[in-house]
Amino acid sequence: MTLSPTDRSTIRRNRERGASDPAALHAILDEGLVCHLGFVRDGDPVVLPTAYGRDGDTLYLHGSTGARYLAGDELPCCVTVTHLDGVVHARAVMHFSMNYRSAVVHGVARKVTDPGERWRALEVIVEQLTPGAWNHARRPDRRELAATAVFALDLAEASVKIRNGPPSDDEADVLADAAWAGVVPVRTVYGTPELAPDLRGHHDVPAHVRSADHRIG
Amino acid sequence: MTLSPTDRSTIRRNRERGASDPAALHAILDEGLVCHLGFVRDGDPVVLPTAYGRDGDTLYLHGSTGARYLAGDELPCCVTVTHLDGVVHARAVMHFSMNYRSAVVHGVARKVTDPGERWRALEVIVEQLTPGAWNHARRPDRRELAATAVFALDLAEASVKIRNGPPSDDEADVLADAAWAGVVPVRTVYGTPELAPDLRGHHDVPAHVRSADHRIG
Repeated sequence: MTLSPTDRSTIRRNRERGASDPAALHAILDEGLVCHLGFVRDGDPVVLPTAYGRDGDTLYLHGSTGARYLAGDELPCCVTVTHLDGVVHARAVMHFSMNYRSAVVHGVARKVTDPGERWRALEVIVEQLTPGAWNHARRPDRRELAATAVFALDLAEASVKIRNGPPSDDEADVLADAAWAGVVPVRTVYGTPELAPDLRGHHDVPAHVRSADHRIG
Repeated sequence: MTLSPTDRSTIRRNRERGASDPAALHAILDEGLVCHLGFVRDGDPVVLPTAYGRDGDTLYLHGSTGARYLAGDELPCCVTVTHLDGVVHARAVMHFSMNYRSAVVHGVARKVTDPGERWRALEVIVEQLTPGAWNHARRPDRRELAATAVFALDLAEASVKIRNGPPSDDEADVLADAAWAGVVPVRTVYGTPELAPDLRGHHDVPAHVRSADHRIG
């Protein structure tokens, strides 16, 4: 299996940055907290940040049943997850770049109606935010489930793009020693948990919250 | 001026999270390094991460003249910039959320052909990555300019959404002390600059690179 079976997921620019490995796709998705969901409304593109989760080769999205874009049974969409790893300073401004890992998934998300799959989808979406949260907090009740739309997107049509390493300058600029060049790493980190002001018990931060920071880096 | 003059940029869900202040829009855009650019290709949505810059009420994008989506004179698009500020742990899994600031800009980007505006656009895109970089590194030459497409997107139709603060649980869950609740802050930070391995001179990290980390938090 490659990740780019169709024309629109074939990377044409900077081919050397493409990766066609399901493990690379899964790793990028699993590390993220927010995806950017693109869809078409009245002919125009819309891009919204939202939560997501993955179960095997399926990506799950959820939202309020009142959200217009989740009203149908199918949602043609593009889901993109990007991790920024560094700012690449080159000798020439036109060679400035970023080190990053991105996954772009194309497809038609289907509304999930099976109760068991909906339950599992909500579990993986919550677990994407913090593993262990699903077993710690109160599970969805009937009213909450009724207010929630769940969509499933197959990961079959996806592309991965990765850039890392130093700047790629023209030889002439390297020889001319035109400017400083290098990479400034960028990382996403967790801070110290802040307790809800109206906590009654549960003042100790649970282990699954304390250990969450191994996931993003 | 409000940021939501049209239907599609009006926030219908979670209205309390909307902000209609140009300063809030500018602040979110100015703090970012990557935007997610959405456009429609063959009827389907595409979302790509890319660099950008802002000059007043105009957002600039650039790319290779070989990129298919930049081939026309106009690009109907949606540009979204999102800053993740925290993971919100609630007593109930369905109230889990994220603290974030996002800007969503809708419009038809126009290809910039005026040489002066193109030059200025490239400057603000480079300066968005690191202020001071434009004056430090080699400026674009004729060949590089010929290979670069520049697009301008008016910021008139934009919406800002901000969530911050503690979880919003149901009163019953708060009273039942159902689970730990709080916010785990998330921040984006810069690491120690890594010198390009083929640097000839310029071994000292310049001041504009060392001071770059004031911009993202």
